[in-house]
Amino acid sequence: MTNNKQILDLMVKTAEQSAQLIRSNFRQSDEYQDKSSHIDIVTATDTASQKNIHEMLVSGMKNLGFSEDEVGFVEEESGNDSVKKHNFIVDPIDGTTNFASGIPFSCISIGYATDHDIKIGVVLEPFSKTLYWGEAGEGSFVKNELLGKRRLQLKMKPEKSWIIGAHLNGLDVVDAQFETYQRIYPHVRGLRNIGSLTLDLCFMADNVIDVVFNQGCYFWDLAAASILLKEAGGQIYDYSGQDLEFDWSDTKKKYHVMACHPSSLEKVVEFVK
Amino acid sequence: MTNNKQILDLMVKTAEQSAQLIRSNFRQSDEYQDKSSHIDIVTATDTASQKNIHEMLVSGMKNLGFSEDEVGFVEEESGNDSVKKHNFIVDPIDGTTNFASGIPFSCISIGYATDHDIKIGVVLEPFSKTLYWGEAGEGSFVKNELLGKRRLQLKMKPEKSWIIGAHLNGLDVVDAQFETYQRIYPHVRGLRNIGSLTLDLCFMADNVIDVVFNQGCYFWDLAAASILLKEAGGQIYDYSGQDLEFDWSDTKKKYHVMACHPSSLEKVVEFVK
Repeated sequence: MTNNKQILDLMVKTAEQSAQLIRSNFRQSDEYQDKSSHIDIVTATDTASQKNIHEMLVSGMKNLGFSEDEVGFVEEESGNDSVKKHNFIVDPIDGTTNFASGIPFSCISIGYATDHDIKIGVVLEPFSKTLYWGEAGEGSFVKNELLGKRRLQLKMKPEKSWIIGAHLNGLDVVDAQFETYQRIYPHVRGLRNIGSLTLDLCFMADNVIDVVFNQGCYFWDLAAASILLKEAGGQIYDYSGQDLEFDWSDTKKKYHVMACHPSSLEKVVEFVK
Repeated sequence: MTNNKQILDLMVKTAEQSAQLIRSNFRQSDEYQDKSSHIDIVTATDTASQKNIHEMLVSGMKNLGFSEDEVGFVEEESGNDSVKKHNFIVDPIDGTTNFASGIPFSCISIGYATDHDIKIGVVLEPFSKTLYWGEAGEGSFVKNELLGKRRLQLKMKPEKSWIIGAHLNGLDVVDAQFETYQRIYPHVRGLRNIGSLTLDLCFMADNVIDVVFNQGCYFWDLAAASILLKEAGGQIYDYSGQDLEFDWSDTKKKYHVMACHPSSLEKVVEFVK
């Protein structure tokens, strides 16, 4: 009988193999293709990482006794979009611009869902080799060489010590984003734009970043981090302050999200009004 | 006869010892003291790192045949401010807010000057163990486990592929900074605020970040990086576009700086007008 622990193991092994690929390809080539605009670039490593993850998950699930018909994928780069009984939601590199520019800070994000419920999230930062994972009902954790393994548990902090994960997105929303950040700045310890939404959400689960804003993200940026964060006591919201619901009928939908400690929600919603 | 290579070695050994201190103290305590405001915090590790660096440089220089009377220090945390024939300009942790908040991205910065000329710069990022160093007339270099040792040489890149190191500083300048960044955003690949000016300048020398803006920095944030960047073909400017000159008669002076490839200067100055 397959259990979630076996699937979690498979997801971690898969992420680790792609992390190796990302490390070896880092700064080895300047090639990239423009996608929708010069802001949104995709590298050959993205595509290779996506392929690697897909193949490992397909064959791993087969070994665990699942047929290909039961296993669906929602993937950023491949165009695969086949929701089934068991689903993996995959971002092969969150922080592609960082990767392409030579900033050693990005991650592999793999979410696993059954019946449209996210059950497991795995996020791996390949440069610091920091692994974040969470499992519904079992808590979430972080592990790296420097700090060992720790359970993630969100703390409530005073506003003046907050670090804001302040993303900038498309030209249709960026002016409003600048205004929001300008309004928040005097009240908090600092704003950071480090270039990976998924890692910002993991940082939040680990009490490093306190509030995150993003108005141009997708299912694959959020799936793994959402369960991690939830298990740590945090939450992702839409821009009106409602709990974020994923739209399984439109897996390419663009989301506007904020994330914070539930007790800070009222204050955070005020900032984007 | 002492030469600069021996002093460079001493600076690297000193930085490495402080890096160990920073790694061991990372996320071990939440204690910090407010300095001028809640944005500007100083941790016990800052102070310990400063003391460690000072002592190692004093005793190292003594071993190299210099008397204490010849060796001065400009230091962020200690209040030492004794300009002599040979001077070390030291920031024990650039990126203190990152360190205090748990973002594993900061650095030790040590500059060395004789007769008011910066001769050597050493910058060490303790988490990725990335060492940057530069010596007047000898070039600048970066070394870490992932990428080995490489010489730094600035490339001219098209504006649309620029990454902007977009710092936010005091409340007296921050509104203008937001305006500048809002104006730049549509033209470039991305803005980042990673929380360490010194590392942004090192990233610039390594063609990762292309333009840096900061309106609240000090001699110790800039000294080491300035020689590194110069040797790589870059330059730090004041906000009017003139080459930055350090004021040795006022070592606590606050600077407004921008940095870029010299060929991009005209375009960059336009953005802050």
